Amino acid sequence: MVKIAVDMMGGDHAPNIVLEAVEKAVHDFEDLEILLFGDETQCHINHPRVHVHHTTEQISMEDEPVRAIKRKKDSSMVKMAEAVKNGEARACVSAGNTGALMSAGLFIVGRLPGVQRPALVVTLPTVQGKGVVFLDVGANADAKAEHLYQNALLGHIYAQNVREISQPRVALLNIGTEAQKGNALTKQAYALLQASDSLHFVGNIEAKTILEDEADVIVTDGYTGNMILKNLEGMAKSVGKIIKGTLMSKLKNKLALLVMKNDIKGLAKQLDYSEYGGSVLLGLDGVVVKAHGSSNAKAFYSAIRQAKIASETKIVETMREKVGENNG
Amino acid sequence: MVKIAVDMMGGDHAPNIVLEAVEKAVHDFEDLEILLFGDETQCHINHPRVHVHHTTEQISMEDEPVRAIKRKKDSSMVKMAEAVKNGEARACVSAGNTGALMSAGLFIVGRLPGVQRPALVVTLPTVQGKGVVFLDVGANADAKAEHLYQNALLGHIYAQNVREISQPRVALLNIGTEAQKGNALTKQAYALLQASDSLHFVGNIEAKTILEDEADVIVTDGYTGNMILKNLEGMAKSVGKIIKGTLMSKLKNKLALLVMKNDIKGLAKQLDYSEYGGSVLLGLDGVVVKAHGSSNAKAFYSAIRQAKIASETKIVETMREKVGENNG
Repeated sequence: MVKIAVDMMGGDHAPNIVLEAVEKAVHDFEDLEILLFGDETQCHINHPRVHVHHTTEQISMEDEPVRAIKRKKDSSMVKMAEAVKNGEARACVSAGNTGALMSAGLFIVGRLPGVQRPALVVTLPTVQGKGVVFLDVGANADAKAEHLYQNALLGHIYAQNVREISQPRVALLNIGTEAQKGNALTKQAYALLQASDSLHFVGNIEAKTILEDEADVIVTDGYTGNMILKNLEGMAKSVGKIIKGTLMSKLKNKLALLVMKNDIKGLAKQLDYSEYGGSVLLGLDGVVVKAHGSSNAKAFYSAIRQAKIASETKIVETMREKVGENNG
Repeated sequence: MVKIAVDMMGGDHAPNIVLEAVEKAVHDFEDLEILLFGDETQCHINHPRVHVHHTTEQISMEDEPVRAIKRKKDSSMVKMAEAVKNGEARACVSAGNTGALMSAGLFIVGRLPGVQRPALVVTLPTVQGKGVVFLDVGANADAKAEHLYQNALLGHIYAQNVREISQPRVALLNIGTEAQKGNALTKQAYALLQASDSLHFVGNIEAKTILEDEADVIVTDGYTGNMILKNLEGMAKSVGKIIKGTLMSKLKNKLALLVMKNDIKGLAKQLDYSEYGGSVLLGLDGVVVKAHGSSNAKAFYSAIRQAKIASETKIVETMREKVGENNG
């Protein structure tokens, strides 16, 4: 039985989408037990493997992360993280305030020994559909070269365990493919990665080929990674608007788009990274999954499934062993 | 009469596309004179306002930038830059090796007094079609906060003169819109920009809304800017591939796309930043325009026109006055 703690109150559409996702998850996975934290008066689920723990406080999207975690002791997010810390649950999932969840991970769940800075990882959809593990997308905005090296180790283990890629190709995101390219940070990180025996380092990768299946893991700092992630998100929306504005102004185009409607939907699904679940905070003494704030029930369900897989494949145990060792 | 120096030998399709662009430019603009540097045996143009200067060396895409500029003294790029330095031409245009052109700008044309680091600027297409001035896209990968502040001044002047926006809204590219967001660099830059009387600073902008017309000038460091530019380039290509792979596999979709063909082309044109000319190296004692390496004749023509406008509107003179003053 895998026990996962879930924050019922986080995200734009809580608690409804959370409850719907939890019901589907315990229905689909017979070895799954959910510890649900939130306002019990809003919870209608009655299931032997769903245990509701009533909480009285809630962390909002506007709350200052560290202060919220330190002060709102009876919030659903804090209680959920404590369940991981004290061993009641193997993993936790929340669609709430990202900064607060990172703080909860850092201050409540705690770092693994040897990990200097946790990293937030996502899986991006790619052209061939294999997907690529991308980190850090925002945990550590002022990274040093050794943090990027650790990100590479964490990403490598994540790709092996969760994505089942036996020998993941690890690349460094940079502004040129040649070894001497980049800023001071990427030049130093390149040297560390190049010298490593633990990784299959394939060199630099440019932002224009992120989605081209040239690597299985792409490493960057939290500032650049967050920037790229938001750029990918925004581009899709902006291009959508431009298409609507120009193409949809003509009837013949409207009809043509109608013909392709279902295939375009399929395409959007292939490009929708919520299909790959949420982002995972790596380097902690437990699995912490962040579902997108605007998650629907399906995306939250994917995040629960992702937390379950990460727990079962023992990524935390592997990271404790391998990352601690590499920093020995 | 505006005199512009042109590198005949730079870029993937030189000299043919350069010659075609030059012919069209002198035809369209009666007050334009071109100093053309390159292999005269390959030049067929016979026009009273095109003066060919024979050169014997060529800088390739593979050449190490600084070394190439220092050693290949009789190359078309070096001679073109020298024409700006000694006052024979007001501006220069090349589609050659970007790094070498930046070095030629720095070591031959020279920095303006008070400018610490030149910046490379592009104009990106936007949703409403207004376009946005974006810098630095690669001149200075390890920027300090005061460099970002100077980039803001340079971008402000560029937007006023070349894009004719009287009071440009200047934004700082960052990983959150709130003032306290970002890495150490953007937090410091925010404070400098916020305190400035010379700029209409509108705060942070996220990478997801770059194309949404929220600002007229967006400022970032050369590492991040280059990353974002390449990501925008690459995304379009990757999505194109995915569309081809899925949509085009069905006959009905092929037919539907055929109906929209012309409008899609128009759309691609709206999103094609080569329509806005090349990138410009700002902060130098002359106008240096970089046309895209894969430019066709139309893109190179746009770059020449852009160099002409920049010369006529005296951006160099304004930058000498305003940027020098702000660093007094």
